Parts: sequence; C-alpha cells; structure tokens
Amino acid sequence: MNALNISEYTQTLGLQAKAAACHMAAASTASRNKALRRLATLLRDNTEALQLDNAKDLERAVAAGLSAPMVDRLKLSPKVLETCAQGCEQLAAMADVIGEIIGMKQQPSGIRVGQMRVPIGVFGMIFESRPNVTIEAASLSIKSGNACILRGGSEAIDSNKALARLVQQALSDSGLPADAVQLVQTTDREVVGQLITMPQYVDVIIPRGGKGLIERISRDAKVPVIKHLDGNCHVYVDDPCDIAMAVKVADNAKTNKYSPCNAAEGLLVARGVAAEFLPLIGRVYADKGVEMRVCPEGRAILQAVPGAQLTDASEQDWSEEYLAPIISVKVVSGLDEAIAHINRYSSHHTDAILTRDHMHAQRFLREVDSASVMVNTSTRFADGFEYGLGAEIGISTDKFHARGPVGIEGLTSLKYVVLGDGEVRQ
Amino acid sequence: MNALNISEYTQTLGLQAKAAACHMAAASTASRNKALRRLATLLRDNTEALQLDNAKDLERAVAAGLSAPMVDRLKLSPKVLETCAQGCEQLAAMADVIGEIIGMKQQPSGIRVGQMRVPIGVFGMIFESRPNVTIEAASLSIKSGNACILRGGSEAIDSNKALARLVQQALSDSGLPADAVQLVQTTDREVVGQLITMPQYVDVIIPRGGKGLIERISRDAKVPVIKHLDGNCHVYVDDPCDIAMAVKVADNAKTNKYSPCNAAEGLLVARGVAAEFLPLIGRVYADKGVEMRVCPEGRAILQAVPGAQLTDASEQDWSEEYLAPIISVKVVSGLDEAIAHINRYSSHHTDAILTRDHMHAQRFLREVDSASVMVNTSTRFADGFEYGLGAEIGISTDKFHARGPVGIEGLTSLKYVVLGDGEVRQ
Repeated sequence: MNALNISEYTQTLGLQAKAAACHMAAASTASRNKALRRLATLLRDNTEALQLDNAKDLERAVAAGLSAPMVDRLKLSPKVLETCAQGCEQLAAMADVIGEIIGMKQQPSGIRVGQMRVPIGVFGMIFESRPNVTIEAASLSIKSGNACILRGGSEAIDSNKALARLVQQALSDSGLPADAVQLVQTTDREVVGQLITMPQYVDVIIPRGGKGLIERISRDAKVPVIKHLDGNCHVYVDDPCDIAMAVKVADNAKTNKYSPCNAAEGLLVARGVAAEFLPLIGRVYADKGVEMRVCPEGRAILQAVPGAQLTDASEQDWSEEYLAPIISVKVVSGLDEAIAHINRYSSHHTDAILTRDHMHAQRFLREVDSASVMVNTSTRFADGFEYGLGAEIGISTDKFHARGPVGIEGLTSLKYVVLGDGEVRQ
Repeated sequence: MNALNISEYTQTLGLQAKAAACHMAAASTASRNKALRRLATLLRDNTEALQLDNAKDLERAVAAGLSAPMVDRLKLSPKVLETCAQGCEQLAAMADVIGEIIGMKQQPSGIRVGQMRVPIGVFGMIFESRPNVTIEAASLSIKSGNACILRGGSEAIDSNKALARLVQQALSDSGLPADAVQLVQTTDREVVGQLITMPQYVDVIIPRGGKGLIERISRDAKVPVIKHLDGNCHVYVDDPCDIAMAVKVADNAKTNKYSPCNAAEGLLVARGVAAEFLPLIGRVYADKGVEMRVCPEGRAILQAVPGAQLTDASEQDWSEEYLAPIISVKVVSGLDEAIAHINRYSSHHTDAILTRDHMHAQRFLREVDSASVMVNTSTRFADGFEYGLGAEIGISTDKFHARGPVGIEGLTSLKYVVLGDGEVRQ
C-alpha cells in the first residue's frame, strides 16, 4: 500500500471500530460471554487448520534465521491453543464489570449522583511475535464491551490472520459486530504511526513488547498510552526485622525467576542488621550463582562468604534492570536513606520493606512513590492474577488512569449517573 | 529571556517542583491544612497591598483598550479576595483524601492487596486572565499534597506574582517547601511549550481558558492533559413523561444561565408528546426571548405559538454550542433516535432524559456515551459542587483518568499496597 492508501485504510479501521464500539457498549452480558465461549470452541475445533497457517510463519522465521527461542515464541502448539481457549472460558465465567454503579449518594439539591462503569470505547494494541496475544487481547476486549484494533508482529501475520478470522466468526455467531475486533491486515509500519495519532477513533493504546517499541510509541502518540517501562524493583531489609523471613523473601524476590519485571534488582540492608543478614543471603545467592554488585561496606561483610561473586557497584548499578542472576547490594543507615535511594533510583514499579516496626512500615507505604509498595512479602507478587484482578491487560508504570497491574477495569471509564425527580438548578 | 535561558528556567522549575512534591507527599494533613488557613489570613491582611499590585494590571489593561468585562475579570476586589480566603478555609476543613486505603482484600496466597490514594506528583496549570485562579489552583495543590507550576495570563502578571508570594509565605510559615507552588515569572509563551513537554517533571497539565488554548495544548502536549472542550448538552423529552416537569426542567436547562458549558443547547422531543409539550415550552422560550432552531415537524407545531422566534435548523445546528439564548429543537420517533442523535452530535458532556418509563431511563443511562447522563433533572447540575466533590479542578470531556466534573481525586493516583507475613511466590 502507498501512504495515501494506508491513511485511508487506517481511517476505515477507525470508523468501523467506533461504530462497533457503540454496539458493544449496548450489548448484553450474555451475548458477550456467549462470544467468548464460542471462540473457545472454534479454537479447539480449528486446532489443525490453525497449525497449518502457523507453519507458514514458522517456515519464514526459520528461513530468515531467527533464533530457536524466537521461533518457539511464534509456535501455536495444541497446548498453547488450549490455554487460549481456557482463558476465554475463564473470562466468560467472570462477573461483568460493565454497568456497575458506585457511590450513588443523595445531594442537598435532591438529586442522587453516582458513577457507572462503562467501556472506554476503542483500544489499540500493538504487540510483537507471540500470536496468542491476538486471542488474549480480543477476549479482554469482548469481555469489557470495547472494540479493538490489533496490530501484531509481521513474523506472525499468517497466524494472527487465522486467529482473527475465528474471533470475527465468534462475534458474528453471537449477534455481535465482527468489526469489534479488527486485525490490521498489512505489516506496513506506517499503520502504527497512524493508529497512535487518531484520538477521534482510538481512546487508548496498549503497546506490548520491547522497551524500544514502547518508548517510540509513547513519544509519538497523540492518544493516551498504558505503558510499562522498566522494572527496577527493590527489597529493603529494615532494622528490626525477622531475619529468617528476610532471607526467604529476598531469595524469592531475586531467584524465583530472573526475567520478569517484578524480580528484585536491588537489595538495601539497614546497617543494624547487615552483619547478621548479609552473610546468610550471601550464602544463598552464592549457591544459586547470583552475582552481587556491592557497596564497600557490603563487600567488607560479604567477602567472608565462600563462593560469593562480588563486584564493586558503580553508580549505574543502582539504576540497572538486570533481568539476570545479578543483584545490587547496598548497606544504608536506615529507613530514611532507603526511601531516598528507592525514590531516586527505582523505576517506580514495585518495592518492598521487610520489617517488624509498624511505624517504618507505614512510612514506607506512604512515602515510596511506586506503583506497588509491599511489606514483608516478595516483589514477585506484583501481578494482576496474584492481586485478584482476574485478568491482566498489562502493568502500568504511569500514574495517570491506571497504575501497577491493570485488569479489565483499565479498559473502562466511569461516567456520572444523576437521578432526579424534576429538580432544577437555583 | 532567550530560548536557551527559557529552557534552563523551565528545567529548574521542574526540578524544584519534583523535589517539593516528595516533601508534600510525606507532609502531614495538619501541616497542609495549616498552610491553607495561613494563606487565608495572609490574603485578608494584605488586601490593600494586593490591590496596589492589581492596579498595575488594570492600568495596563485600560491603556491597551481591553473591554470593560475583560478589565472586570482582572479585578482583585476585596470581595474577590475574601471569597479566595474563604475557599482556602473550606478546603482546610475538608477531610483529607490522601492516604485513604480502598479495597484491601485477602488473596489465596495469603497476601492482602488494596490501593492507597496518593498525590499524583506535579501538575501544571495554564490559565487566562482571572488572577484568583492562582489561589484556587494553589490551594487545591496544597490540599492534595501535590506540587504545581502555575502559568497565568500576561494581563494579570503583577497580580499573580503578588498572590504567589503570599502562597509561598504561607507554605514556609507552615514548614512546607515554598517551591510546592511556583508561578512562572515570565510571560514568554515559549515556557508553555516547554512545560507541556516535560513528562520527567510534570505528571499532568490542566489548561483553563478558551477552546483555542485547550486545543493547542492538547495537540502539542507530551504529558497527560485534563481537558474540557465543548458543552453541547441535550434534553430529551420522552414518551411517556410528566409534561409539567418536562417544561420546568427544559426551561431551567436552557434559561437558568446561557453561558455555562452545562446549559442545554439541544432539545429532542418524542413524537408522541410533541403536540402537547412543544407549545408549552415554546411559550416559555418565546417569553424569555430564546430563539428556536427547529426541524420541519417542530416548526409545524411551534408556529402557532405567539412570539416564537423560529429558524429552520441546518445540519450545523445539531452540533452547535450556542452559549446564548438559542436552542435547537428536533422531533424524534422515540428513544432509539434520541440516543443515536445524541451519540452522534453531542459533545459527550451532559445529556438528560425526561421520562416515566423505567426501561427507557435505564437504556438512556447505559447507552448515551457522555460524561454525565441524567434522568428527570436539569443538565445545569453537572458541576463539582452539585455532585458533592467539595471542590472542582475542572470538567473533563475525556474518558481517560477523569471524566466529567473533576474534584481533588483527579489530582491523585492509586498505588497498590501489599501486606504480607513472609509469603513468597511459588
């Protein structure tokens, strides 16, 4: 397509999404849940056909010399498709958030004022590689009564097209507009540029992918973006604290998994407990092959630990998101220095204090400016499912609209509902 | 200042605001309320001095040939200043929203998860003419524990500077950082361009002024904007309805005041009640000199009303925000056409149905995509104070973050608070 055609094409997507969004907002809970269950059935019934389409992407990927893990992420195995189908069924079983009315209160004038939760309208999702995101995004959109425009990676275009056809069939079979979920049919990059600058059609953009993609979209977007940048999370071991618990939690926060954004990247230890705590956690990290980037005071204590991999921390280490078996370690004078360090270097994602002191816990919760603040538990719990949100559209490191793990409510807005009996304004 | 100096100056404002925001977030409720009461006292004690500074702005305005109403809006009369002082005291008396914890629930893993309301950080307000907005914005900022950067109109620069000095004194006198409220000291327009493109320092921008200003800021901003564009509000008179009540409410919605954004600009009437209702409201509007821009069916009924000012409505009339004694009038077949018309032409601000039919009321509330949807009451109630918000920072016609009248909560965000007892992720 040339630039003019791209522009026309994207406008058409926008217009169709807007029209579909009106229908979806008025659609019954039953019909939206029906579409989700129908989609689950279609995914199971078409597993073989989907794998044929998927094979085209896989062949291209292998021919292009993509790495084995990259090729693996593209794969729509029967297991991946079954997980998608179950996800749709789980969403169908969840209570509907749309139509909920909160805070209805009588006002002095006689009117009653509350707020009703309604779909936000149209969202755009821009994602890379994994084609199962097409089903995740489509099912969240259907459940929340929105319309969406999906733009997947070019590597997965054949798989995405095949999945999107099933989604549209499930919508039609349930009496809902097929345009409620539209997949961008071209891999031309210009479409993304258009999509993120159409506030007249698109209410919010959710990018999923590498930091480069997210930064580029945030920079150029003219519509709101729910974005997730770094996860430089901290565990602060306070004085006083339960040392055995601190070892267990600091271990879990770092070593449970290295790649997630909610894994700890920095360990702060109050001077009063450093001599007792550091050798214990140092032994755990040494056993698991975790390198420690240490301050001089930390090194003085940790160098006695057999097998400890110690490196002197540079200024850069305090800001680093390793996503690897590496953790920065710093001894601090106490709560004040810990809070100041976190507010300066943390990515405002998730930070935890391990303490027995109630006032310290309260101050940490209040003063640490992060999306999730925790007491006596692992940063690894920062997750939509662990928080009981039932589904996760992403994690936001912004403060506006949604902060932290974002559930279906992040795809809704609250409008005011006012009920009267003929009252007029004086 | 030259471009380089402007850039340095704005960066400094941002850095100082960010540092002050940390202090404000940790400040006690008592100290923030103390600063508000101190500001009220300072405004009263300095009424004469403020009027001297205000006189400079007034003289310049008269010399520049500004219209009498424009000059009047600049005036800091003792009455205006007393209203500002009372506003500060009212805010001080309000409950603190900061620190509130909502929805704390136990999760299967053992952790408890809730959300704490915290200040959003730094907001920028860009406003025109009226210098009292300086006090309004400053006091809302202090109450909500934020820092702010205020950019007033060049016509009011001397008044704004004098007011901002008192605000900073009130902050210092209460042990809070003076930089928590900073007024831009230059009238160079380039500062606005910088201010709205510093997401590293500014969390949200609130423009207050004409549509041109707001559109320009929304277009160029790289930080979130809480914005208010048009107020094309509708009253839909349904079949069946209480005709006497409908006349009273349709009268109030149009004629209570013509200039506010929540005044009705369009009247839709169900065919079944048009012959009874239109002559009655037509007489009211005729008596008050309200011109009616009518559809052919409406004209056929209304032309019998003595003194009715009737004009044939053009397509443009359905979208118009008159802010004047003019209203568009259209006869519709019923609820479906009314909802479709409103969703197409309304500015999604405030729309009301007047009805006796419960199912119609429910559908209107659900399907009309506006910030405020009302049953049997006047659109004029769409207002922060009437909604019980205690204060109003603006009205949002967006769906993201805040929608409709925005109270102090619009200047806050919710962060997750997680309490554990040593739980770790499996």
